[in-house]
Amino acid sequence: MSDIEARFAALEARIKGLEDQLDIYQLFATYGPSVDSRTGSVTASLWAKDGTYDFGGDPLVGAGNVGSLVDIEPHIHYVADGCAHVLSMPHIAVDGDRAVATGYSRVYLNQGDHWRVERASANRWELVRTPEGWRVQNRVNRLLDGQPEARDLLSSGVTQSS
Amino acid sequence: MSDIEARFAALEARIKGLEDQLDIYQLFATYGPSVDSRTGSVTASLWAKDGTYDFGGDPLVGAGNVGSLVDIEPHIHYVADGCAHVLSMPHIAVDGDRAVATGYSRVYLNQGDHWRVERASANRWELVRTPEGWRVQNRVNRLLDGQPEARDLLSSGVTQSS
Amino acid sequence: MSDIEARFAALEARIKGLEDQLDIYQLFATYGPSVDSRTGSVTASLWAKDGTYDFGGDPLVGAGNVGSLVDIEPHIHYVADGCAHVLSMPHIAVDGDRAVATGYSRVYLNQGDHWRVERASANRWELVRTPEGWRVQNRVNRLLDGQPEARDLLSSGVTQSS
Repeated sequence: MSDIEARFAALEARIKGLEDQLDIYQLFATYGPSVDSRTGSVTASLWAKDGTYDFGGDPLVGAGNVGSLVDIEPHIHYVADGCAHVLSMPHIAVDGDRAVATGYSRVYLNQGDHWRVERASANRWELVRTPEGWRVQNRVNRLLDGQPEARDLLSSGVTQSS
Repeated sequence: MSDIEARFAALEARIKGLEDQLDIYQLFATYGPSVDSRTGSVTASLWAKDGTYDFGGDPLVGAGNVGSLVDIEPHIHYVADGCAHVLSMPHIAVDGDRAVATGYSRVYLNQGDHWRVERASANRWELVRTPEGWRVQNRVNRLLDGQPEARDLLSSGVTQSS
Repeated sequence: MSDIEARFAALEARIKGLEDQLDIYQLFATYGPSVDSRTGSVTASLWAKDGTYDFGGDPLVGAGNVGSLVDIEPHIHYVADGCAHVLSMPHIAVDGDRAVATGYSRVYLNQGDHWRVERASANRWELVRTPEGWRVQNRVNRLLDGQPEARDLLSSGVTQSS
C-alpha cells in the first residue's frame, strides 16, 4: 500500500500545482469586471485583509480601501464614459503558500467612436494562500512610460523562476 | 478497496474541474483566429446548434447564422484592412453541465501605421457541455461606452461565484 | 493491481495534458516581460537552441540571436519610451512532443498621455518538448494589416484541431 500512497500523493501534488495556477488566473479574471462595474465589494474580496496596492504615491492599505478605489472621482468618470481594465495572462511563480504573478494591465477608455489606451502598466502581484483561497497581499503597478521601475518589476518577476 | 475508489473519484473530480476551465479557455482562443481569418465553419463549431449571439439588436439564432457573421459587409472590410478580435482571459463559473464565462473583447483595426481600438465590450458567455465538448449557448456582447447594461454583464458574472 | 495501474495511468495522462497547456501559457507569459525589460537572456531561454523567429524578412536563427532582438535600435527606443508586448491567451494543439500555439501579439507604445497600438499581429508558434520543458522551435509573426499570410496563420492553427 505504501507505493499506492506515494502515487496518490504524487498526483495530488501535481493537481495542486495546476489548481494554484488556475485559481490565480480566476482571481485575475475577476479584477477587471469588478472595477469596471464599480462592484467594490468584489474588488476588496480579492485582497488579503491587510493587503496593499501601490500605484505610485502612498500605497492603499487594507482590502476595504482598495475596494474603495472604485468610488474615487477619476474612476467614476472612467466608468461613466465606458472603460475596460484588462489584465494579461500573468507569469506565476508559486513558492508554498506564497506566489508572485507578473503581467500587464491596460485601461481602455471610450472616446465616442473608438477607445483610447489610457494606461499600460507593468504589475507585480504578491499573493498569499488563505483558507478562502489565493488573495493579493501586495500589488505594485507602474506605468510603462519609460520609467526604469516598471522594467524592474517585469524582469524580476520572470528572472527568478525561468 | 472502497477507500481507493473514493480517492480516485476525488482526484478525477478535481481533474475534471481543471479540464473544464482549460477547455473553455481553448474555446475562447479559437474564436478570434476563426473570425479574423473568416473561417466561419470554425466560428460556427464553437456554438451549440441552437446557440445564439446577442450584440445589441435582434440576436442571431443558430450556430450557422453566427458563423455567417464573417460574411457580412462590415466584417469583410475589417478583415481586408486587417483586424484582431482579442478576448481576455475570462472568469469562469461552472455549474454541472452549464457554465458562465465573463470577460472582455476588443477589436483592433489597422489604420496604416497603427491600430485603432474600434470596439471594447463586456461579454457574458453561457456555455453548455455537449458530447463534443463545451459549446456556446448564448453570448451577450455590449459595448463599454457607458451603457449600464455592459456594467451589469460584468458584475453579474463575478458576483455569483466570488 | 493491473486495474489500478490503468487508472493511475489514465489520470497521469490527463494531468500531463493539463500541464502541457499550462506550461505553454507560462512560456507565453514570460515573453513580454523579458523583451519589455530588455532581459535578453530570458527571451533566449524560451527558444530551442536552434529555434527560429520569422517576422517578415530573413528569419533569426538560434536562441541567442532571438534574445539579441532586445538590443537592436528600434527596440531600445521602444523600451526607453515605454512599451508593452502583450500576447493573447493562445490556442494550443499538442501532438506528442510537438505543439502549435496560435494567437495574437500587440505592441503598445507610450505617446506621453496615452499608448498607441503600434503593432497587432497573427502568430504561429511551433513548440518542442525538451528535457527542460517546452521551447519555441519556430515563431512566425505577420502584421494584421490585411496581408493574406496573417489570416492563413490564424486559420491553419485553429482548423486542424477544432
